[in-house]
Amino acid sequence: MAGVDSKGECVKIYGDTKSGNCYKVQLVCSLLDIDHEWIAVDILAGDTKSDEFLQKNPNGKIPLLELDGGETLAESNAIINYLASGSALYPEGSLAQARILQWQFFEQYSHEPFIAVARFINKYLGLPEEKADDYASKQAGGHKALQVMEQQLGKTPFLAGDNFTTADISLYAYTHVAHEGGFELEAYPAILAWLDRVASMPNFKGMA
Amino acid sequence: MAGVDSKGECVKIYGDTKSGNCYKVQLVCSLLDIDHEWIAVDILAGDTKSDEFLQKNPNGKIPLLELDGGETLAESNAIINYLASGSALYPEGSLAQARILQWQFFEQYSHEPFIAVARFINKYLGLPEEKADDYASKQAGGHKALQVMEQQLGKTPFLAGDNFTTADISLYAYTHVAHEGGFELEAYPAILAWLDRVASMPNFKGMA
Repeated sequence: MAGVDSKGECVKIYGDTKSGNCYKVQLVCSLLDIDHEWIAVDILAGDTKSDEFLQKNPNGKIPLLELDGGETLAESNAIINYLASGSALYPEGSLAQARILQWQFFEQYSHEPFIAVARFINKYLGLPEEKADDYASKQAGGHKALQVMEQQLGKTPFLAGDNFTTADISLYAYTHVAHEGGFELEAYPAILAWLDRVASMPNFKGMA
Repeated sequence: MAGVDSKGECVKIYGDTKSGNCYKVQLVCSLLDIDHEWIAVDILAGDTKSDEFLQKNPNGKIPLLELDGGETLAESNAIINYLASGSALYPEGSLAQARILQWQFFEQYSHEPFIAVARFINKYLGLPEEKADDYASKQAGGHKALQVMEQQLGKTPFLAGDNFTTADISLYAYTHVAHEGGFELEAYPAILAWLDRVASMPNFKGMA
């Protein structure tokens, strides 16, 4: 791993340690030793809906990256690819990058809305009665996503092929805490082996 | 626009003309004059759930790109960035690409699940009684996404700034047919002007 902040600036990161999407950014900063200022934003307290925050990100979501000149960049996967550009985590080449992007779009459309949302309902909302149907409705989609990952990880050590990339970071974030959303991983041996592989990377940092 | 197929190969594209996600790929191929073979896949007939198709994409979704060597690439936004790499639609530079990616991840998480899904329920399922609640529940999220786009397009002519990129193609696909999901665009003048701007691009191709 290069471990170099090729951007040559001190970025600000607005995030909440409860969020796996924010953890992706923390993990990349740790793996690549990227100098940054962490600005704590409390989702449950409504911080992302304040006028001040909405001026920075009209979509009202974290993580958010703020560059030296004040420009902001939203969306966890866009942020980590930007921070990792120039390193082996996001290698050059249009096909190599497209292989990573396909897993990141899969994550945001077919994985996160099931696994992360079920986890949020269970862990942070305490699985209230009125959310029970919503929680139950997330299980089939989450297992389908895990099956897609299991197939790939039965063939290659990492999601985009032979090398550890931001695709793995994007999917590690909520997969390693999937049990908190009711998804037991015993039936997915290739995923379990991959989780260990990711967690053994130099400068790996666990989720808070 | 370069109008060059820099990949130097004849790609196969599996798609359904009813899908805005597939239309993104058709539009990039038209704008850049990319040689391709279109393989019609009928979502409503269940073609994406056949064993043969699931071997190509275990996630059972279209569009799907198949390269000369048989490698496949899924996820519409990953596919169009790959096809557009080397052209002005997906310019070089990690920050320029990150600005595009943030809009594409926004599209897949905050726009498509509301606007495209409402359109699908209305236009292709005929808004059946048992889907009425689901349809209604998509309206607020869809308008929120349109408001985020409206804010940006009030400041810059295209989503990622001054230039027409794959970010615009990704969001044009379902925004220009948003009315089919019940989203009237009269309240979004900057979006309406941008739709015209996109549709006036050389080699623009409308949705079938």
